[in-house]
Amino acid sequence: MVVKSQIKLIKNLQQKKYRVEHGLFVAEGTKMVRELLKSDISPYLIYVSDMEALETRPDLVELVSVNELKSMSGLVAPNRALGVFFIPNPKPVDLSDWVVALDDVRDPGNLGTIIRLCDWFGIHHLICSKHTVDCYNPKVLQATMGSIARVNIVYADLQNFLERTGSPIYGAFMDGVDVYADKLPETGILVMGNEANGISKTIEGLAEKKICIPQFGGNTAESLNVANATSILLSEIRRGR
Amino acid sequence: MVVKSQIKLIKNLQQKKYRVEHGLFVAEGTKMVRELLKSDISPYLIYVSDMEALETRPDLVELVSVNELKSMSGLVAPNRALGVFFIPNPKPVDLSDWVVALDDVRDPGNLGTIIRLCDWFGIHHLICSKHTVDCYNPKVLQATMGSIARVNIVYADLQNFLERTGSPIYGAFMDGVDVYADKLPETGILVMGNEANGISKTIEGLAEKKICIPQFGGNTAESLNVANATSILLSEIRRGR
Repeated sequence: MVVKSQIKLIKNLQQKKYRVEHGLFVAEGTKMVRELLKSDISPYLIYVSDMEALETRPDLVELVSVNELKSMSGLVAPNRALGVFFIPNPKPVDLSDWVVALDDVRDPGNLGTIIRLCDWFGIHHLICSKHTVDCYNPKVLQATMGSIARVNIVYADLQNFLERTGSPIYGAFMDGVDVYADKLPETGILVMGNEANGISKTIEGLAEKKICIPQFGGNTAESLNVANATSILLSEIRRGR
Repeated sequence: MVVKSQIKLIKNLQQKKYRVEHGLFVAEGTKMVRELLKSDISPYLIYVSDMEALETRPDLVELVSVNELKSMSGLVAPNRALGVFFIPNPKPVDLSDWVVALDDVRDPGNLGTIIRLCDWFGIHHLICSKHTVDCYNPKVLQATMGSIARVNIVYADLQNFLERTGSPIYGAFMDGVDVYADKLPETGILVMGNEANGISKTIEGLAEKKICIPQFGGNTAESLNVANATSILLSEIRRGR
């Protein structure tokens, strides 16, 4: 039996202000909860609707009814497991390898996909500008497919961060130099911009190199989606290794 | 003044069975309608809520009230223009360049994004298996950002199509050979699989070459999203040009 105040807390955590207030976030689905339990992100509460939902850590989980799980869930079709986790403290950013920085990416699906791409390409650190969508937003979490557990995400004043770094700063622009023709260094910061406006003027001034993905369709399509552009640029960064 | 039967027709075209029955589809938004009017896809009816919404082809458009436009729209926030177009007859597939083939891609956002990617990379022909989501589905159209106007999309029995082609067939698999190490030919068919199951066994048997995008994150992320994988593989196909 879950007390009402607990259900209310979990529902409230759908909203950023409550996540910030409590320092907690909600992850739904057996896969997502399992991935988080394997990481160093600390669990606060785990609910399952059947004990088979989560074979690991039976010590941690509490069995609830399907209806109770439904009453906590933010999903239309609730899964068999829901976990409340402590929002981890960001770790220091290690600049000995490439990192990705986002300048106000607003769409939860895009941020989630970019986190998943970082995980695939072994990018361990993601810097997000203050106006980038919150990575503990439920839609972001779903789109990460569990990769949120393996990427260190740091929200920072991006201008300040970039001004203080010694790493080469590469920005993705529509009018940059052809990324295929460019030899990318062993380490750097790849900056990707907002969906509608791209990289802001301030950040543009800090980019040492502007790169682009050339268009082959006779200048018909207006742009690439930011997650697709990130996938291609990360592929370029890694393919030479 | 729009007659009720017209509004009903337009609402019905949200569903595939009515699109097939009438041979028509609905496109919303000034950008989308404008792109389609520039293509060889024939317009049936165009409605705008103000005459500035569509500066081209004033001969074609009918001015309606904001509320009338709202009553036809499938969107939560209707745009200023809505067009009904004839579903074009597919053109013959030209195999003198790379084409993309989809084996049961089901998510509208993924198909729309793949159409947009084809447009960006100058891939003019997209073959979809019979169970791939309908490209005139409103969610697909929105995700194409207008690129639907510039890619020839052919729904076909994929097995039959691949059995009869002389082009090299490349399939994207988790266990394929490293695409970065492979020299891709000047022309071929790139087959991408279903979101959950990948490429089906039958189609796998027809692929001459299985390729993969290597993972750099220590085998943590389970897979790449199909649209992201397509973006990387199209980038690989074009980067040497």
